[in-house]
Amino acid sequence: MMREGQDSKPKLCHATVIFGDIRGFTSFASKHPPGRVIHLLDRHLENQIRLVFDEEGTIDKFLGDGIMAIFGAPQALDNAELRAVRAAWRMREASCQPVRDEEGNEYVLRSGFGIATGPFVLGFVGSRRLSSLTTIGDTVNLAARLQGVTGDADIIIDRTTYEKVKEFVEVESLGQVTLKGKENEIIHCWRVTALKDASGE
Amino acid sequence: MMREGQDSKPKLCHATVIFGDIRGFTSFASKHPPGRVIHLLDRHLENQIRLVFDEEGTIDKFLGDGIMAIFGAPQALDNAELRAVRAAWRMREASCQPVRDEEGNEYVLRSGFGIATGPFVLGFVGSRRLSSLTTIGDTVNLAARLQGVTGDADIIIDRTTYEKVKEFVEVESLGQVTLKGKENEIIHCWRVTALKDASGE
Repeated sequence: MMREGQDSKPKLCHATVIFGDIRGFTSFASKHPPGRVIHLLDRHLENQIRLVFDEEGTIDKFLGDGIMAIFGAPQALDNAELRAVRAAWRMREASCQPVRDEEGNEYVLRSGFGIATGPFVLGFVGSRRLSSLTTIGDTVNLAARLQGVTGDADIIIDRTTYEKVKEFVEVESLGQVTLKGKENEIIHCWRVTALKDASGE
Repeated sequence: MMREGQDSKPKLCHATVIFGDIRGFTSFASKHPPGRVIHLLDRHLENQIRLVFDEEGTIDKFLGDGIMAIFGAPQALDNAELRAVRAAWRMREASCQPVRDEEGNEYVLRSGFGIATGPFVLGFVGSRRLSSLTTIGDTVNLAARLQGVTGDADIIIDRTTYEKVKEFVEVESLGQVTLKGKENEIIHCWRVTALKDASGE
């Protein structure tokens, strides 16, 4: 998925990637009727999408109850790292507000986020009928991995993102993690505990 | 992504899910120019998509160099499990044939596959501009997990799939694995080593 008017030529980007995920949603989905599951997910994602667009991010795709967004690609964006962290902060806050099913019952779909910044390849693949934006690179894998580090409704960022946003956020160090398939590569990561200026302006 | 004319109402499906992935592609992509990476991936996925359609499967989405396909949903399909295994077998074989870049250089993008059968919720989510098919359920998570069990260009299937296809394939037991976040749940899985009748008819 892309916003309109963008160049579809493959390119090497340097940008910030967010992976978000509703905690425990697979289990939730197994206990509720499909109509309700999709209705609630739809409401939730509608809010999440809006918050990505508010910070000029691009939705890459939905993955089950997950969402992947990109800041700073395919088009460059000033302060992409801070915009991504701010978007994730608001997405997390929004996810802690209840969404209503068609009967007015309320459910909270708390979400956690992983954020990484770095290079990746971006382009369109597939047949004409099934063309799709795709992203290839360790930055994307790292964001997906960080999303799962705590399993809670947290925002976890990598070092490159941290270095760019550290004046604007409060963080707690989570120490080091390893990436699947790259056990000899140590990744330092941080949990974002607050935005210093909630308006972010 | 869906094939035309299908019902978009949320439903609880019982179907077979394939996750495929090119082994080592992230690393490959970091060493080649973006144009070549996307060109080769495009050629590869074009072949993979065709083989999914040949067995009447549906492409759910592309995930970087990965592909997710569904057999038996949104519309029922006779022998969905066997069709999925047969498709994966041919997708794996196709992935062992070289694809050419624009200068005629050849590269082999060997792929591995995870296959699981069971219930999941299927529906459309997102805003009108970004509507997307989505799938929620342990069956989907299991197929994704099985895809990574060996890290080789293998086809790994779960018990439900195995029970339905065992007369038609040769397998090797891989014993038990656990699912991330469900470490107390033991999953038995098998590697498909041959189709008994390569024509599958």
